[in-house]
This record gives sequence, structure tokens and C-alpha cells, in this order.
Amino acid sequence: MFESAEVDHEISKDEYNRMEEELREQLLAAQLVLREQGKQAVLVVIAGVDAAGKGETVQLINTWLDPRRVHTFAFGEPSDEERDRPPLWRYWRVLPPKGEVGIFFDSWYNAPLQAYVAGEIDAAEFDRAIDRANRFERMLANEGFVLLKLWFHITKKEQRKRFRELEADKLTRWRVTKQDWRNFEAYDEIVAAAGRAVRESSTDVAPWIVVPGKDERYRGITVGRALLDALCNEEVGAAPSDTSMHPVAAIDGNSVLAALDSTLTVDEDTYERELEHWQGRLAKLVRRAKFASRSLVVVFEGVDAAGKGGAIRRVTAPVDPRLYQVVAIAAPTDEERARPYLWRFWRHLPRLGKIVVFDRSWYGRVLVERVEGFCTTSDWMRAYSEINDFEEQLVERGAIIVKLWLHITQEEQLRRFEERQQEARKRHKIGPDDWRNREKWPRYEQAVTDMIDRTSTEFAPWDLIEANDKSFARVKILRTICERLEAAME
Amino acid sequence: MFESAEVDHEISKDEYNRMEEELREQLLAAQLVLREQGKQAVLVVIAGVDAAGKGETVQLINTWLDPRRVHTFAFGEPSDEERDRPPLWRYWRVLPPKGEVGIFFDSWYNAPLQAYVAGEIDAAEFDRAIDRANRFERMLANEGFVLLKLWFHITKKEQRKRFRELEADKLTRWRVTKQDWRNFEAYDEIVAAAGRAVRESSTDVAPWIVVPGKDERYRGITVGRALLDALCNEEVGAAPSDTSMHPVAAIDGNSVLAALDSTLTVDEDTYERELEHWQGRLAKLVRRAKFASRSLVVVFEGVDAAGKGGAIRRVTAPVDPRLYQVVAIAAPTDEERARPYLWRFWRHLPRLGKIVVFDRSWYGRVLVERVEGFCTTSDWMRAYSEINDFEEQLVERGAIIVKLWLHITQEEQLRRFEERQQEARKRHKIGPDDWRNREKWPRYEQAVTDMIDRTSTEFAPWDLIEANDKSFARVKILRTICERLEAAME
Repeated sequence: MFESAEVDHEISKDEYNRMEEELREQLLAAQLVLREQGKQAVLVVIAGVDAAGKGETVQLINTWLDPRRVHTFAFGEPSDEERDRPPLWRYWRVLPPKGEVGIFFDSWYNAPLQAYVAGEIDAAEFDRAIDRANRFERMLANEGFVLLKLWFHITKKEQRKRFRELEADKLTRWRVTKQDWRNFEAYDEIVAAAGRAVRESSTDVAPWIVVPGKDERYRGITVGRALLDALCNEEVGAAPSDTSMHPVAAIDGNSVLAALDSTLTVDEDTYERELEHWQGRLAKLVRRAKFASRSLVVVFEGVDAAGKGGAIRRVTAPVDPRLYQVVAIAAPTDEERARPYLWRFWRHLPRLGKIVVFDRSWYGRVLVERVEGFCTTSDWMRAYSEINDFEEQLVERGAIIVKLWLHITQEEQLRRFEERQQEARKRHKIGPDDWRNREKWPRYEQAVTDMIDRTSTEFAPWDLIEANDKSFARVKILRTICERLEAAME
Repeated sequence: MFESAEVDHEISKDEYNRMEEELREQLLAAQLVLREQGKQAVLVVIAGVDAAGKGETVQLINTWLDPRRVHTFAFGEPSDEERDRPPLWRYWRVLPPKGEVGIFFDSWYNAPLQAYVAGEIDAAEFDRAIDRANRFERMLANEGFVLLKLWFHITKKEQRKRFRELEADKLTRWRVTKQDWRNFEAYDEIVAAAGRAVRESSTDVAPWIVVPGKDERYRGITVGRALLDALCNEEVGAAPSDTSMHPVAAIDGNSVLAALDSTLTVDEDTYERELEHWQGRLAKLVRRAKFASRSLVVVFEGVDAAGKGGAIRRVTAPVDPRLYQVVAIAAPTDEERARPYLWRFWRHLPRLGKIVVFDRSWYGRVLVERVEGFCTTSDWMRAYSEINDFEEQLVERGAIIVKLWLHITQEEQLRRFEERQQEARKRHKIGPDDWRNREKWPRYEQAVTDMIDRTSTEFAPWDLIEANDKSFARVKILRTICERLEAAME
């Protein structure tokens, strides 16, 4: 993997000065274009063996570029807020917006590499971690990120020489720690593991570039040119060639939705009794000691007037308001629009012991955005697995995910729309958009069916709620949430 | 203070049901208006003695209102990210946007009250904390917040009765802790301190409302009506009556800016030598062990083409990029526009051991916003003390603030503008706005003079940089930052 990087490379000082001056001008110009077009973000991932010049090179990049549009992050030990969320949360929260450059010193490769070298995970688990990294990076690329992954390499002999030089100078002695010497002892294992990671995660959208770390000038120009390529990359931000592949509709028109019994109701007495019962149970469940190391994410989806708002109120009513947040998803803010579509959901993820209720969610991608043509077929087709990846990470960090589809019939929706128009108090809840969406009913129904088929997983299944009768729906929703909590806390 | 709350109050069940139904409808309608107008945010601050029904009441509010637009926060122990910033940071970060409702369970009153009752701070320090709370709340009110501060009160006798009742039931026993009984013992001291706090922080813009906690129904209706008043408050969001008071210009035209010697220069050799010297020193200073418990905030201000960008690059170049972020302040995002003007700066405050460089800053309020009339005279007049309060909090939490005004003469600006227009590479840096701003030179100069007079404090002084010669300016800036760091870390 690293053979070429061990060949001696050198650039003379004069040559370097000439190259640097040219490069610098090109980089600044390219950064300006990146910013003005605002279609892409560039993310530079820094990795490699110790003392191979990572810090020096990042410092160099920062002097070349306009530092006001470059955001460098070193992650180190996670904060307590970060530990409560999936490992990728800390990277998501600082993703640069389109038009800007991010430099990540540590990345999602650090933890699996360390664990693998230390023998804490086996090859299969390591490969799985790398596979996840690939999936994450592919998503970023599809969302307009140009990924530049740099692996800094020097030989073991060179590393020893550098450590000794640093130790000899009292000004730089602090830079060499005991851990560094331990890593030096494990050099061969680290490089072997790194080789595996680099090999398995060099994809078409995010290949690794191995940087020979020995010669400072050669290293600088190598990175500068790679960065220039990344800044000028037109491919990623360009509209991807669209696919015509998409799920196939059932030929006989039958579907999981059509199979629901829309006549289900409860009478008022049963409703009052059941509601009180399940609300009491929910209040107790989230107070359990065990819940302090879990979190709850409830997703409400459903057509307009399906009764999401009213149902959410019945769910939150019994719960201590210190424990939950309700997040209503409307049009994205401009900060959200400048980042991958999942960013706005990552930022609302609960800490352990807490609850977030989403009134509409990331499923907008495969529902309204699909049907209205707000994204390409490729975009929503890939969203299914991106969403599954997202939810899997959440569940692995302790989240219990309850996804509810509130199903009403077309006739019932019409009845509710008309009711809304007649009642002064409810008139604000209905507008021309709602009537327009109604005309697309069959297309929405197809989108819902596909969504359920493709994102109902063993770790985060969909629950379909017959919602023509609001009382029936509310009781079933509360019961579902309680049962899922109980099962998860067994 | 709490006499009226100890009188017996009662509402019959029938009366309550009738009142509640009416209230509920009014609250929902008012919440909708609040949201549609988007001019104000409502912030409900909850405080009071234990077992007086705080939690129950907030739960009730959440069932009355549309929970999708209500954000309830209990703060408890600060996270490590919060501990690295001024105490108010945790409240700033979750301030609701205009149109929505925030409910804060604990607030800026908790810490001083606890410390005072425990004898850790004396009356003078307590009063100072309350004064700060008042200033913070006045700022919020001026920025469109309606503040509803609720103090829940019950007598000592009633408190004992409730604790015993809760302990008698095995389902609620967990709610009474040893700390609660200790607080019970200290009831008189707590209520005395609370009386002092309530008295001193009942202002015209944020009065306390004392809620009698004994009767559940009376308590609920009391809070509901107060909340309705807050939601319907038209006063705050309305444009405040403007002031005609403002700083007086010097009669003879002399000023701190005019007194600067704009002919100062350095020759190229001195520049290279000095630059290297101070850059090396800066790199070392921020690596000192002592810096790990401090942070550095550098503010760059100056007219267009004053050389801010180039100077920032010279400052960041020697510093490990893992330590700093550069924040370029342009037009606010829509999330920022929905909140007080200082919010966008609070969100970028560094953790301890880190550096943030602001390319333009909160001083925009008293410079461009004043001169261009983007805010009223009252707005920028009050900004001076709001900014001083902000910076004082930062300094108290370990920040070293360096504020740099880069001064160039009008002739030098013209020369640079013309240079920019001629050089293809720099043409993007100049537009019609720049020429327009130039015409307002005297007004900007007055604004700068006032800013320096009113915000150059002993904890965060302004440094004026003669910047007609870029080299001279860069050296002076680096030296200033180094000297301030050294002095602060003595």
C-alpha cells in the first residue's frame, strides 16, 4: 500500500518556491470559485502515522487558503454531550456548509484502527467499521461533498529519527509522549491495519491519497496539488446522472395500506379508560432507572389531517416536560439547506435519558420530496439505505425508535378538510397546498408503501396506525410506544 | 413578598372546568398569532420552593399549548462543554426563536440563590448576580422577548405535608430526596433569600408573578391567565419609542482616530524579522500549560480594505490549526435573525484552551447598523452596555479578549480600492457597496470614536492599529496579542 511513499522524493528549494507561488494563487482562486458557486463543500480528512508531518501540513494549508472559510477540527476525547449520541454525531455537528472547506484531524477511522491494533475488535468487526465509513462518505459525496482523504506515511526508521530529533530539542520535547513510543513499537501492526483500512476505503468517491511524509517540500506540494484538484472538482456538485430504476408498484393495487382495516373504532368510555391506562404506563416507563441509559425517538408521519398533532399531544401530556422535545419539521432553514438533508435531524438527536418526538421527519425525502420532484430519483432511491444506516447508528447508541404511519382514507381526509374550512378555529390548518397534495394521493400511497417495505427494519420497524377514528389511533399509538419501550428495556 | 400566596385560594371543580375550557381555546389562538406574527418569543422562567407544583404546572401548560412550538428545558448539572463557557451560555444556546415559547425550569437565579443560602456569597455578591440577571432580561425584552417569571410558593407547613404524602406512596417516594428535606430545614432562609431576589428582579420588563402553589386548580388557572397575557403582549414586539439621545461629537473635529500617526511604517527587513519573532512567540504562548484554562477571543474591526484578512492570516499562520477557528461575520442566517443580535456570537465562543478570531463582530451593531439605520438609536445606544456585559462574562470565564481597530486614512482606502479594481485577482473584493460606504466616512468615524469611548474597558480594552502600512499593522497586531496573552497569564 505504501511502497511509493517510501521511495525517496525531493524537491529543491528553488523549485519549491516557484511551485508554491503558483499553487497558492491557484488555490485562492479555486477557493473563491467554490465559495461563489456554493454547490459543494470540501472535506479534508487527515490521517497517518505519527511524526509524518500532518500538523505541519494542515498549518501550511491554512496559510495558503483564506482561513475565514476553512474550519479545522481535532476531535480527541469526546465530550459528555457527544458520548450520549452515535459516534458520528461529533462529525455531523461541525460539517462545513456548501462553499467552505473543513479539515478533520481525527476522523471516523481513528476509533476502529486503534481498537483493531489493540486487539479489541477482530478483522470482521474492523471491516464492518470500514464499510460504514464508506457508506457515510458515499452519502456525503452524493450530498455535494468533495472528500480528500490524506494518509501521511514515513518508514519506521524515519519515525524513530524524528522522535529523537524532537526529544533532543527542549522546545519540542513535549511533542513526543510515551504513547508515541508505544505506537512506535507497534509500527508494523499499525501500518498493516492502516493498509487494510486504506485499501478497503479507497472508493471512487473518496479515494485515499498516500502522502510521502519524509521530505517537507515534496509533502507540501503533493498535498497542495491534491487540494487544488479537490477544490476544482466539478463532478460532485454537478447533477448526477439520474436513474430510472425505482420500486415496482403492485400490479393488483393491493398494498399494506389497503390491507388496513379503516373501520376500526373505540367508543368513548373505552377511549377514556385506555388512554388513561397507557398514558400512566408511559409516564412510568420513562422514569425507570433503565431509561437513563436509553433514549426514545418517536417519528410521526401521515398525510395532511391524519391527526399527527392531536396524537402527539396525547403522547407528551403524561410525560415530564423536562424529558422531551417536540421537533416540527417544516421548510429547512438556510443553514440546513447548505448541508446534507439528514443534518437537520442529527442536530436534534436526544441525549441519553431523553425523548424527541418528530412531527414529520427524514422520511420527507422519500415522501414529499419524491412525489413533488424536489430531488432526483437517485436521491430518494439512495435515501432508503442512508436512512437505515442513520437509524441503525441511533439504535446502537441506545435509542429506541418508534415510527408511526397514521393512515386515513381519502374520504376521511376530505371530510376533515371540509370540517377545517368550516370551523373558524381550524381554518389556518388548511390551504391550497393541502388540496393540491390530495390530487397526488395514488403517488403518495405508492411512496408510503415503498418506504415501509424498504425502511421497516428489525431495529426500527414501522407501525401502521389505522387513524380514521382519532380515538382508536391515539390509543394504539400510546400502546405501541409503551410496548416498544417495555420490550427494549427487558 | 409572599403574603398573598399564603392566603387560602380555591376554585371549585365545575368552575375550573369552565375556566379551563375557555382558557385553552384562548391560549391556542394566542399561540397561533404569536407564531404567525413572528415578532416575539415568550420565555417562561419557573422557580419556587420544592413541592409547590412547578412540574405539574409546566406539564399542564404543555397540554394546553401546541407542544410543537413549546421548548422546555431543565438544565441541572452543566455539561463539560457548558462549563467551559460563561454561565449564561447554556441559556443562550437554547433561546427559542421568535414566534415560539420557551420554558426554562432552572434559570440564572438558581446558582446565586443556592450560593447565598449556603453562605458561599455575601449579600453584595448576591445583589450583583441579581443585577446581572436584570440586565440580561432587559436585553432580552428589548430584543423581542416577553418574559414571564413565575415563583411558586407554599408555606413550610404545606411543604412538610406534601413531602410526607409523597413518601407515603411507593409510586412517588422517589420524588422526595434527602436534599429536599435539607431544603425543608432551610425553608426560612430560602424564602428570605428568594424574597430578596424576587423583590430586586421584579422589573417593568420582567416582573415576577408569585403563584400560590397550594390549590392545584387555583394554581393552574393563575398560571394559564398569566401565560395568556404574555402571549398576547403587544408592547414588547412593537417598535420601541426611539430616543434622540446619543453621543456628542467632538466640536473641534479632533478624535482618537485623528490623533493616530498614519505615517508609521516599517522597512521590509524589520518586517520580516519582527513578524517571525512575534509569530514564534505567539505559537509558544498558546501552547503554555496555563493557556489550557484560558481562551482567546480576537476581534478584528476596520473599514473596508483596512487589511483585516491579511492580518488575520499572519496571526493564524503560526498557530496550530487545531486550536483556532476564524469566524467571518457576514449577513445573519435566518436562524440568527430570529434571535437577539448577540446570539450569533455566543454560539461561536471557544472552549477553554481554544482561540476564536472574529473577522468583524458584535460591534457591527454600533457601526454599520447604526450608520446605515438598520436599527433604531435606542437599539445601538443600549448595545454599548450589552456588549460590555457580554465581554465581562467572557473574561470572568477565562477569556482574554483582544479588540483591534485597523485604522486607515480615507486617501489610503481610495488607493486600495483603485488597486483592487485594476487587479483581476482582487476585483471580487470590491463592489458598489464599498464605494457607497466610503461616502459615509465621517459618520463611520463618529461611530468608531463613540464605540472606542464606550466599550474600551479595563477587562477588554480596544487597541488602535495604524494600518496605512500593512507591514507595520501586522507587526503591531501580533505584538499586541502576545503582550496581552503574557500579561493575562502572569
